[in-house]
Amino acid sequence: MTLRKQAEEMIQAAIAECLPDQAVKEALLQHEFGSGRVRVVAAGKGAWQMAKAAAEVLGGRADSGVVITKYGHVKGPIANMECFEAGHPVPDENGFSATRKAIEAVEGLAEEDTVLLLLSGGGSALFEHPLIPAQELLALTEEMLSCGADIVEINAVRKRMSAVKGGKFASLCAPAKVFCVALSDVLGDRADAIASGPACPDTSTCEEAAAVVKKYGLHLSSRAQELLLCETPKELPNAEIRVVGSVSKLCRAMEEQCRRRGYETVLLTDCLSCEAREAGAFLANIARCHAGKGTKRAFIAGGETVVHLRGAGKGGRNQELALSAAAGLAGLPQAALFSVGSDGTDGITDAAGGYVDEKTAGALREAGIDIFQMLENNDSYHALQKTGGLIVTGATGTNVNDVAVLLLSGEQDGGANL
Amino acid sequence: MTLRKQAEEMIQAAIAECLPDQAVKEALLQHEFGSGRVRVVAAGKGAWQMAKAAAEVLGGRADSGVVITKYGHVKGPIANMECFEAGHPVPDENGFSATRKAIEAVEGLAEEDTVLLLLSGGGSALFEHPLIPAQELLALTEEMLSCGADIVEINAVRKRMSAVKGGKFASLCAPAKVFCVALSDVLGDRADAIASGPACPDTSTCEEAAAVVKKYGLHLSSRAQELLLCETPKELPNAEIRVVGSVSKLCRAMEEQCRRRGYETVLLTDCLSCEAREAGAFLANIARCHAGKGTKRAFIAGGETVVHLRGAGKGGRNQELALSAAAGLAGLPQAALFSVGSDGTDGITDAAGGYVDEKTAGALREAGIDIFQMLENNDSYHALQKTGGLIVTGATGTNVNDVAVLLLSGEQDGGANL
Repeated sequence: MTLRKQAEEMIQAAIAECLPDQAVKEALLQHEFGSGRVRVVAAGKGAWQMAKAAAEVLGGRADSGVVITKYGHVKGPIANMECFEAGHPVPDENGFSATRKAIEAVEGLAEEDTVLLLLSGGGSALFEHPLIPAQELLALTEEMLSCGADIVEINAVRKRMSAVKGGKFASLCAPAKVFCVALSDVLGDRADAIASGPACPDTSTCEEAAAVVKKYGLHLSSRAQELLLCETPKELPNAEIRVVGSVSKLCRAMEEQCRRRGYETVLLTDCLSCEAREAGAFLANIARCHAGKGTKRAFIAGGETVVHLRGAGKGGRNQELALSAAAGLAGLPQAALFSVGSDGTDGITDAAGGYVDEKTAGALREAGIDIFQMLENNDSYHALQKTGGLIVTGATGTNVNDVAVLLLSGEQDGGANL
Repeated sequence: MTLRKQAEEMIQAAIAECLPDQAVKEALLQHEFGSGRVRVVAAGKGAWQMAKAAAEVLGGRADSGVVITKYGHVKGPIANMECFEAGHPVPDENGFSATRKAIEAVEGLAEEDTVLLLLSGGGSALFEHPLIPAQELLALTEEMLSCGADIVEINAVRKRMSAVKGGKFASLCAPAKVFCVALSDVLGDRADAIASGPACPDTSTCEEAAAVVKKYGLHLSSRAQELLLCETPKELPNAEIRVVGSVSKLCRAMEEQCRRRGYETVLLTDCLSCEAREAGAFLANIARCHAGKGTKRAFIAGGETVVHLRGAGKGGRNQELALSAAAGLAGLPQAALFSVGSDGTDGITDAAGGYVDEKTAGALREAGIDIFQMLENNDSYHALQKTGGLIVTGATGTNVNDVAVLLLSGEQDGGANL
């Protein structure tokens, strides 16, 4: 079986093990909802899948629900719930209006009532009621993304511009209780960072947000500057959070898939957070040392890399990581590297990630495509498209971040000494 | 024993195992010099050490010699040889005049004579007779270094601007034989890249050199453009090359030092070539996954990273790699990372490399030093100086590139879940 075929199978199987269905059901069965009403609010790329699983457990126990997910992620109706699709990674009016519906749904509840909040990655963009004009918020988010701010930094600022982020949604639910089940796409699984923590006492401070503004030289209106000074809730006695799933689980699932296929595995990290291009280069450096030594090896790195936007091309952090490894893999005996987002979408593309192997760089050269220039233009998508290196899964129903895997087939090199 | 103390001991011991003395002696004892004269030419950071070892084997068999090394690297006189010190990494007039002496020393030799050429890293700058004005060559080299060109790319261009590089020195020695013993500081140990291959048929082509000029948008005079078209020797029947020592050996020596101290070791790569800052970030990402799990682990990465100069600070690639890991190590249970150049000099500083641990980031914060800003200004030296993180060895006598080691003490974390 080719390494490409193996990669496809491993990706499918590892992501299947990270679907939220079973984890959500277990969390709900262990929870004591009491006698009051139950309202469901679900937001994020895994919202539909999580709400569907919740509906199967709760049945008529939930009297209504609002589900907000990304375009193309609603896979059918769910009894008693309204499903909305909205913009991600750039939030849009559909997300804002759906979030207003969620806020209305939790108004007037009593102390014995429960809001079941189902969160997953992407919730930061999808679940939002901005306190500054939407256009200003979009511009601010764009500015932070393009200068390479990480998700923790972006959220420290955005929480203060929002009516729901940073614990504020749980405040709106009071006196009702909030039971939040969160699928983590955040390294270290900090609950206040998942979907910007709408039900979580916020650990980020006004000082930290101000430091981000200073670090990247962000431009704020006077209204935004005022909001930057308003502290977020630091205690939320009505809210309880259960984190289920994480990139660690994804890494372990991928390790198991590798082992079943005879690879010796090395889990490098489940906290990968460096520049995507350099992570790819580093993994290729590892390949050049270990390929051709006669041992079937897999190196696994999970997390969320960052991309500094320089060009106007099409791509995503997983595709960029993969493409940047292609030159280093060139000419090795059977070596492949793939990187994939567990949610099935990488950047603003229809691909979940990218695959390269020892033949990719040569194939690109023959096609007249310069890897270096494609990376400079952040155009990994079109380079990988040429070599059949796009990994397409469609929306997966989960979102536990990304995993990159280097596969060395164990073929011996011919002893050629360059 | 503190991790810092362990690091110092391990560095000293691993470098000692990579000194060229023994390897040079073995190579000479196995070589058949014949009946002619023997002239020695040694160039590079390890030149003095290699020439000294050769003199001990050859005795009066060598009738004269020219030794060219970096300032501060001559440790005493060697019988029958003239020792010169010159500029590195930026070549200077002392290097050019010493190289002219070497060229004169090999003039008029006969077929039965042998030039013993002892090469080590640094030889590209130290052993040079430029075919364009020295100032122009310096500017060109500076330009390539500052835009992040790697050593292979730099050499493809410089070989064509030189009277000795790219096999041309061996041509000058003909009809005499050339026996070249090279201590490798080049990833993959390509002999034509060590000290720019003065005795090696050049595998780089005029086309490749032209591609480097295009890739980085270099500015060439018309004379330089002409030289770019002159092909280097592709066959040198009078020359024989023996490569001794390499970064792989340094990595294995470091691995052994770690094992003796009870660490489980993972050799990540002996071909590290990515951006220094990102290599540090990647290693810190590895630390965050494995620290506090109760196992004493060491991760080792050898090679030569690159630095894109942005600021006007003081530092080197090893110091920058170490400093860039400091933020990621912060707060972990006992974790340290050091990176060191085996030649004892990192960048244009008196340090060989840098050391950071879980306390470094906090100490810098308390001292009012911003890691991010120091890295932006390429000023790792002054940051590490503040935390006692400079590793100073002095000139070591060898040059087999760099090694970075991540040490995790095996202390369990307290179970604190941030």
